[in-house]
Amino acid sequence: MAANKTTRRSKPRSTIERAATIVAPQSKRPTERPSDRPCKVALLGFGTVGSSVAKILCERSNAALRLTHVLNRNIARKKVDWLPSSVYWTENIDDILSSDADIVVEVLGGLQPTEDWIRRALTSGKSVVTANKQLIARCGLELIALAQQMKQQIEFGASVAGGVPVISGLQQGLAGDDLFKIRGILNGTCNYILSQIESNGIPFATALREAQKLGFAEADPTEDIDGLDARAKLAILARVGLRCNIQPESIMARSISAIDAVDFEYAKQLGCTIRQISWAELRKPEVKSAERNTGANENSKRQELLAAVQPALVELSSPLARVEGAQNLVIATGTYGGETVFGGHGAGGHPTAVAVVSDILAIAHSRQYAQSPLKSASPSVNGDAPERPEKTPTVTDDYTSKHYLRFLVKDRPGIIASLATILAECGVNIDSVLQKPGCPKSHLPFLISLEECEASLVERALRQINTLDFMVQPCLHLPIL
Amino acid sequence: MAANKTTRRSKPRSTIERAATIVAPQSKRPTERPSDRPCKVALLGFGTVGSSVAKILCERSNAALRLTHVLNRNIARKKVDWLPSSVYWTENIDDILSSDADIVVEVLGGLQPTEDWIRRALTSGKSVVTANKQLIARCGLELIALAQQMKQQIEFGASVAGGVPVISGLQQGLAGDDLFKIRGILNGTCNYILSQIESNGIPFATALREAQKLGFAEADPTEDIDGLDARAKLAILARVGLRCNIQPESIMARSISAIDAVDFEYAKQLGCTIRQISWAELRKPEVKSAERNTGANENSKRQELLAAVQPALVELSSPLARVEGAQNLVIATGTYGGETVFGGHGAGGHPTAVAVVSDILAIAHSRQYAQSPLKSASPSVNGDAPERPEKTPTVTDDYTSKHYLRFLVKDRPGIIASLATILAECGVNIDSVLQKPGCPKSHLPFLISLEECEASLVERALRQINTLDFMVQPCLHLPIL
Repeated sequence: MAANKTTRRSKPRSTIERAATIVAPQSKRPTERPSDRPCKVALLGFGTVGSSVAKILCERSNAALRLTHVLNRNIARKKVDWLPSSVYWTENIDDILSSDADIVVEVLGGLQPTEDWIRRALTSGKSVVTANKQLIARCGLELIALAQQMKQQIEFGASVAGGVPVISGLQQGLAGDDLFKIRGILNGTCNYILSQIESNGIPFATALREAQKLGFAEADPTEDIDGLDARAKLAILARVGLRCNIQPESIMARSISAIDAVDFEYAKQLGCTIRQISWAELRKPEVKSAERNTGANENSKRQELLAAVQPALVELSSPLARVEGAQNLVIATGTYGGETVFGGHGAGGHPTAVAVVSDILAIAHSRQYAQSPLKSASPSVNGDAPERPEKTPTVTDDYTSKHYLRFLVKDRPGIIASLATILAECGVNIDSVLQKPGCPKSHLPFLISLEECEASLVERALRQINTLDFMVQPCLHLPIL
Repeated sequence: MAANKTTRRSKPRSTIERAATIVAPQSKRPTERPSDRPCKVALLGFGTVGSSVAKILCERSNAALRLTHVLNRNIARKKVDWLPSSVYWTENIDDILSSDADIVVEVLGGLQPTEDWIRRALTSGKSVVTANKQLIARCGLELIALAQQMKQQIEFGASVAGGVPVISGLQQGLAGDDLFKIRGILNGTCNYILSQIESNGIPFATALREAQKLGFAEADPTEDIDGLDARAKLAILARVGLRCNIQPESIMARSISAIDAVDFEYAKQLGCTIRQISWAELRKPEVKSAERNTGANENSKRQELLAAVQPALVELSSPLARVEGAQNLVIATGTYGGETVFGGHGAGGHPTAVAVVSDILAIAHSRQYAQSPLKSASPSVNGDAPERPEKTPTVTDDYTSKHYLRFLVKDRPGIIASLATILAECGVNIDSVLQKPGCPKSHLPFLISLEECEASLVERALRQINTLDFMVQPCLHLPIL
C-alpha cells in the first residue's frame, strides 16, 4: 500500500476532519513524561483487523491508551463516524512518523512498503505492534534488534493463531520450561476445508469452492492450501518457543489439495482423521547414531530441527483431531511441563484485534513505569530472555513415523506384489493393506500403511513406485502422528 | 513450618556446608546494580515442587539466575548432593530476609507463617514468587499492594492449574479482550476420580481409595473433593480474568462425593459426561428484568458474578468433557475473541515448577532492565493493568441451565406423579424421565431432566421433595452445561 497524499489534498475536508487535524499533535513535547499521559496509538490499515482494533480501543474505557491516527488508502471512503473526531486520518506515512504517537500498529500486511515503514517507525522512536506473519517470519530478528537498539519494543502476538495467545504463552507462561516440540493447526482455511471434506464426503475442489463462497478461503488460496501461510507461522513459533532461527523457506510444506473424501474413510479405519499439521521438533544430536558410526562427529554436534507443514493422520483421541472449522490449536511440549495446549479463534477481525490490543497494552504498561523513554524503557518483550542462547539448527524434514500411502491404480493382478517388493527393497515394512469395496477398477483407491520408519526411505520407494504403469496418479503419502 | 535454628547449630557442619556459608552473601552490596549480576533466588520449601524448581534452575544454563538459598525444616535430612555447594541451606527465615537474595520463592504452602514471611520478604526489598493458591485467594490484593508500595513484584502463576500458563494468558495474552466468563477443570484429583468412576463403573468410595493409593488424592481429601481447592483457584481467576474481587468463601462449592457410576450412564444417555466444573460469569445488571420491574434500580446497577464449583454435566463434544485423568483445562470467553482454551498438567512437581521458574524469569527480566531497584523497577506484573477498574460484584450461585435430577427411591406407584406435581408448582418443566432397567425396587435410581430454569426454583422444589417418604437419599441435582 502506497500513501497517496494527492488524493487526500484534492478532496475538500469536513469540519470534523479539520478539527481533528488541529488537535492532532504533530510533534513530541519533550517536557511530557510518558507516564503523565496516555499512550498514543497510530493505526496503519483500517481493514477488517484495523477497524476491530479501533473498535476495541474506543469501546473499552481506556485511560492509558488513545487512538490518535489512522492511515489507510482512500480515507474518504474508509472514514467511519464512530471514531472520535480527534482521530487524525491520513494517507501519508510521514504524518504518522512525525507525530507524537508512541505506538505504531501495523495491520496492513504485505512485505513492502510495510517493512520500510516499520523500520522508520522504530527509528523515529516509536514502538511497533504488528500482525504481519510473513514479515516477522522473514526479518523478525532484524526488527527486534533494531527495536532494542532504539530502546523501543516490537510485538507480534497477532502474527500466529490470531486471538490464541500462544506467542505470549510460549515466551512468558512457559519460559521456565525447556520446550523441544511444537505441533499445531495454524491455518483455519485448511482446517475448514478438511473438516468439510470429512463431514460431507465432498471432493477437495468442491470444499474449496464452498470455503471461497463463505469467505473462509481467498480467491487465490495458494498461500493457505500449499502451507506457505502456516510455515511462516511455524517459523515464528520455532523461534519464540524453541529458540531456533529458521527461515520459512527452509520448512518443507505440502499441499492439502491431494486429500480426498476416501482418505478420511481410510483414516477412520486406522482410528484417525486428517489435519494440516505444522510441526517443529528439536532433535538431540546423539540420536543420529548413523552419523556417529561414520565418524561425522563435528556435524552431529549441531542440533537438528525437524520442521514440516503437511496434511497428516492424527489419532481421533488427540486434541488436534478435535479442532473443527476455522479454529487453531497449538501443543507445546517441554522437558519439564509435558504438553500444554492453547486453542481458540485463529483468524477473524475481532480475535486478531484482541491479540493486537494485548500487545499494545503490554507496551503501554511497560512504558508507563519507565522513567524515561530513552533511558530505561523495557526491551522488546519479544526479545530474547537473556539466559537462553539462540540456536541455528540444521533443518530437516526426514521425520520418523508410521506412514499412510494411498494409491489410485488401474486394477490388474500383481499390483500388491510389485509394491511390496519395492517397499521391502527400500527397507520399509507394511503394517496393513485396506481396500474399500465397490470402487471402479479403472480408478481403484487403496491404502497401505507402513510401520514406523524414516520418511526418506518411503520417499525413495515412492520415486520408483510412481513410475509404474498401473499408477493413475502419484501415491499420496502422509505421516501417521 | 517453624524455622529451627537449634537443629542446624547442634549438628556438625561439613566442609562444603561451611564453605557455602562463607560464600553465601549476607547483605546487600549497595554499589552493585541489579543488571550487573545474576538475579539471586532463595527457595522456601524443598518438597516436590521446591526440589523441581531447584532442578530446573540448575539444569538449565541460566546466566541470569542463581539459586543461592534453600530454607526447609530439618535440612540435614533434606540436603541433596546435586545442588552447587554455594547454595546456603537454612532453617531460619531471618537468614533469607537478611541475605542479598533478590527473589524469594515460596513453595511451602499453608497460611501461616507463610503470609508473614512473604510480607517480610517484600518489606525487605525482595520480590516474591508463590504457588500458594489459598494465600493468594485470601490476601492476594493486599500482598500486591504491599509489593507495589515496596517497588517489588509478586507473581503467582503456579497458584492455578500448575503448569498451564493461564494466569499469564489471562493477564497478558488476553489483556486486549473484555472477558466475561471463565469455566475450568481446576482440580486434577476430582477429575481423576470422576474419570475412574466413568471408565471403570466403580463406586465413588472405591475410586477415591484407588486415587489415594496412587498418590492422586491426599489422606484427607476434603479440600479437593468438596471443591475448596478449586474455589480458591476460581477466586484467583475471577480476579485476574474478570477483575472481580471476591473471597473464596463467597463461592458455592459442592462435593463430588454424591456422584456414582449410574450417573455416568444417565449422563451418557443425555450426550454428556460429568466433571467438576469451576465457573465464574459476569452478568450485566440489565438481564435481571425481575429487579427492574420491582424498581430495584440502585441494586441492579451493581454487577453480579455467578460463581460456583460443582459437579456438572458437560456435553461430550465440549473440550471440558475430554479432559482425562489429572489434566486441567480453562476456557476463557471474551466479548471480542470468543472462547480461548488453555490445557495441560495441572499439578505435579515439574509442571508446577515450570510455572514458578517462568515467574522468576519474568521478574529477573524486568529487574535486569530497571535502572535502579528502588526507582524504576517494574510494578507487579500481577498488579492491575491501569486501564481496567476493579469490580466488587455481588456473588450469586443462582445459575440458569437445564438440570439433572437423579433420585434414589423405594419404588411404589405414584412417585413420578408426586414429583411432577411439586416441580410444576415451583414453575419447573420436566424435559425427560429415564429409568434404566434391572435395578432393585428398594434402591431404584432414576433421572428427571428439567428444561432451562433458575437453580433456585429447582432447589425450592427439592426442599419439599427430599422430605417425601419414598426418598432413600436426597436428590442429586447437577446443572447441565
